[in-house]
Amino acid sequence: MKKKNITILGAGLVGSLLACMLEKRGYQVQVFERRSDMRKQKLIAGRSINLAMSVRGWTALEKAGIKEQFEKIAIPMHGREIHQSNGETNFQAYGKNNEAIYSISRGELNLQMMNLAEEAGTVFHFGHKCTDVNLETNQVTFETENGTEYHTADLLIGADGAFSSLRTAMTKTDRFNYQQFYINAGYKELHIPPTENGEHQIYKNALHIWPRGKFMVIALPNMDGSFTCTLFFPFHGTPSFDTVKTKEDVKTFFAEYFPDVINRMPDLLEDYFDNPTASLVTVKCDPWIYKNKSLLIGDSAHAIVPFYGQGMNAAFEDASVLVDLIDEDPNADDWSDILKRYNDSRVKNGQAIADLAIRNFYEMSDHVAKPEFLRRKKIEKEIGTLFPEKFNSVYEQVSFTNNDYAKAWKRQKAQDVLLEKILKIEDFKEIPFSQKALDQLEILLDEYQKVIG
Amino acid sequence: MKKKNITILGAGLVGSLLACMLEKRGYQVQVFERRSDMRKQKLIAGRSINLAMSVRGWTALEKAGIKEQFEKIAIPMHGREIHQSNGETNFQAYGKNNEAIYSISRGELNLQMMNLAEEAGTVFHFGHKCTDVNLETNQVTFETENGTEYHTADLLIGADGAFSSLRTAMTKTDRFNYQQFYINAGYKELHIPPTENGEHQIYKNALHIWPRGKFMVIALPNMDGSFTCTLFFPFHGTPSFDTVKTKEDVKTFFAEYFPDVINRMPDLLEDYFDNPTASLVTVKCDPWIYKNKSLLIGDSAHAIVPFYGQGMNAAFEDASVLVDLIDEDPNADDWSDILKRYNDSRVKNGQAIADLAIRNFYEMSDHVAKPEFLRRKKIEKEIGTLFPEKFNSVYEQVSFTNNDYAKAWKRQKAQDVLLEKILKIEDFKEIPFSQKALDQLEILLDEYQKVIG
Repeated sequence: MKKKNITILGAGLVGSLLACMLEKRGYQVQVFERRSDMRKQKLIAGRSINLAMSVRGWTALEKAGIKEQFEKIAIPMHGREIHQSNGETNFQAYGKNNEAIYSISRGELNLQMMNLAEEAGTVFHFGHKCTDVNLETNQVTFETENGTEYHTADLLIGADGAFSSLRTAMTKTDRFNYQQFYINAGYKELHIPPTENGEHQIYKNALHIWPRGKFMVIALPNMDGSFTCTLFFPFHGTPSFDTVKTKEDVKTFFAEYFPDVINRMPDLLEDYFDNPTASLVTVKCDPWIYKNKSLLIGDSAHAIVPFYGQGMNAAFEDASVLVDLIDEDPNADDWSDILKRYNDSRVKNGQAIADLAIRNFYEMSDHVAKPEFLRRKKIEKEIGTLFPEKFNSVYEQVSFTNNDYAKAWKRQKAQDVLLEKILKIEDFKEIPFSQKALDQLEILLDEYQKVIG
Repeated sequence: MKKKNITILGAGLVGSLLACMLEKRGYQVQVFERRSDMRKQKLIAGRSINLAMSVRGWTALEKAGIKEQFEKIAIPMHGREIHQSNGETNFQAYGKNNEAIYSISRGELNLQMMNLAEEAGTVFHFGHKCTDVNLETNQVTFETENGTEYHTADLLIGADGAFSSLRTAMTKTDRFNYQQFYINAGYKELHIPPTENGEHQIYKNALHIWPRGKFMVIALPNMDGSFTCTLFFPFHGTPSFDTVKTKEDVKTFFAEYFPDVINRMPDLLEDYFDNPTASLVTVKCDPWIYKNKSLLIGDSAHAIVPFYGQGMNAAFEDASVLVDLIDEDPNADDWSDILKRYNDSRVKNGQAIADLAIRNFYEMSDHVAKPEFLRRKKIEKEIGTLFPEKFNSVYEQVSFTNNDYAKAWKRQKAQDVLLEKILKIEDFKEIPFSQKALDQLEILLDEYQKVIG
């Protein structure tokens, strides 16, 4: 049987990965991308955004048969290195068994993935800006250098990011639920160059965090010895992007809050004023499909804030799940059933990781410096040590398994309720817990177990 | 000073009202409407949607100097007439002092309002479908019978409803928060004709409700002796629009659940199959303005479900507030400050009435038949009687005052918490309350007072 011709909007990470996966299954794939071909531009090493690849991302790459080549350009980070205001640092391992998440360059990943898709037979059309989608006919209108072009697809996949054109068309259909909201903080990229010998200035195998309550700097290692850093900073208030305006402001601000960073950033001022200030949007919608015609994948369906390091991982998992469903019915002519099952499986998980990421943002910005928060973290750790079977780390569930995000979010909410209760009980003031506290804890943990099922 | 030329998108209720109000203040107003001129079509009496006008709506009409002529076509409804499954009815007054809300025909209201605006100098352009808005230049693109037309405004007002083109343009701007969501029920219009003598078949001065848990019928009186009825019904489940498909289904369904209605609806089958099944959307967004260029008003900013009868009232209140702000600075050249104050004043209130309306939907559909709910309602009433100063009816705040919706919503949430607590306390089992219960109640009411401030 003749396989469908599939059109993907967007040549980003998930668009390119999905093209590879679909070509392997005998589909003819065309990818339309708004921008020009990034492979024909000069990549500035160390200056593109990095991503933290965790198990879900690797699972998808393995399924596509392209894991090995990306392992070569990924740097393992085994934990968070926290830099306190007084200059002290402490290292918090991500998992009990030396698990790691992996720093990888978005640009390099994207470039290699496009090459792989092209080798597999995908046709890429760059400089095609989608201006309209007819959901009934799957006719897509593009603006190009050569004027308006039209293209009609058997199946249309919107891998076109947080501001997706396909989703915009879906937003106008009956009973399409949609939400976009911005947090009050934005971000700016900065960087720490390598030493003269091309080595990393700070510990290579960690994700570095300088938490300062309402704002923070993070740093992820690059292959060339540099770190890509991000300042997350409120738009308004003091201090904020509003108040840190001049070169003098920037110097004073960094000297006060990040004295151990400023010395490692010779280009701080150039970076601060040359790089854009970007916003952080969350997108949720339901459904992710339209009839048997089209589907959303990745950021177009679930743009999330970066505070769980799961944006790309969630997108790659969408692709994994979709191709698993295709493999269960490889000769399907009508994709209604595949799309329906994709939707049932992914919408709840996309919304859950969006919520988990927002929760992490509030936890980091509101609580990090409060004694109540630190006490809570200690109790959490103690419970995890005492009852490792009953009380699992949500972070590990999210980052080191392929289990449903929706279950992790349910677990997180149940843990929040549990900890809320424990913090109110006098008997839990001391660690190690008294026998009386332990008895109560067992009862509370049984309740908790019932909730998470 | 030359006054701005103001362009309003949408010739619906709030667009026409605002045109009247702005003309009176010396502005030149043009209104562009997608549809053709409804005044040139035949109005089918009794078949258009009715609205329930309450104090906020009247306040705006009074401010526009056009209250009297609409009083002539409005029918007071002093309470709800509840029709139980067993055919019994009971009447619940809306207020303690014979307050009423008023049934009024949307079509008639709109038609007269357009005439008033036109007499005041407003130019209406019908058959103009807005296809694009340039937010920076305020150039609007329209599709018309005669091809594409362009129009540029000093100030652009989006009174273009739940699927607003102006808002769609704003949705693409940075840090614009937006949400649209649908409840699981839709609606269908039905009608009860007058008697042969042109009289109302059921009590004229009430809003009639046939509550049946997950679904209900309501009826509002018309001037010609008929009632406009609405069936609110889930899309899926049993029974639902999914299961009630054939003429036989409709007859069986109405005979089972609405035996006293079916006899009064000779055209039930025609209405059910000819009238569309419509969805119920809630829209929230923030901000409602763009720079000093444009603003949203009415449904474009806050489409809400109809379960509080406040959609049009909220929209008219937007217009009241806006012209009050204009009157405070009648010669303002740059409207930045007016728009900013409009936004600060209205966004929180628009979101609050959206939430109040959704809460009413869930209260009606989930609770109405449960004994727990009926007990709660009795306790609520008793507290209101015992402490009229401390425990005000939220419904009265919303319907019979011009106080902020945001305060009413805060009060509603505090009352929900209070009632939740009271329902758990054994001492409140009996009415009248024991002295012990009354002592506890005073403490709880003091807590409640602190919350609502």
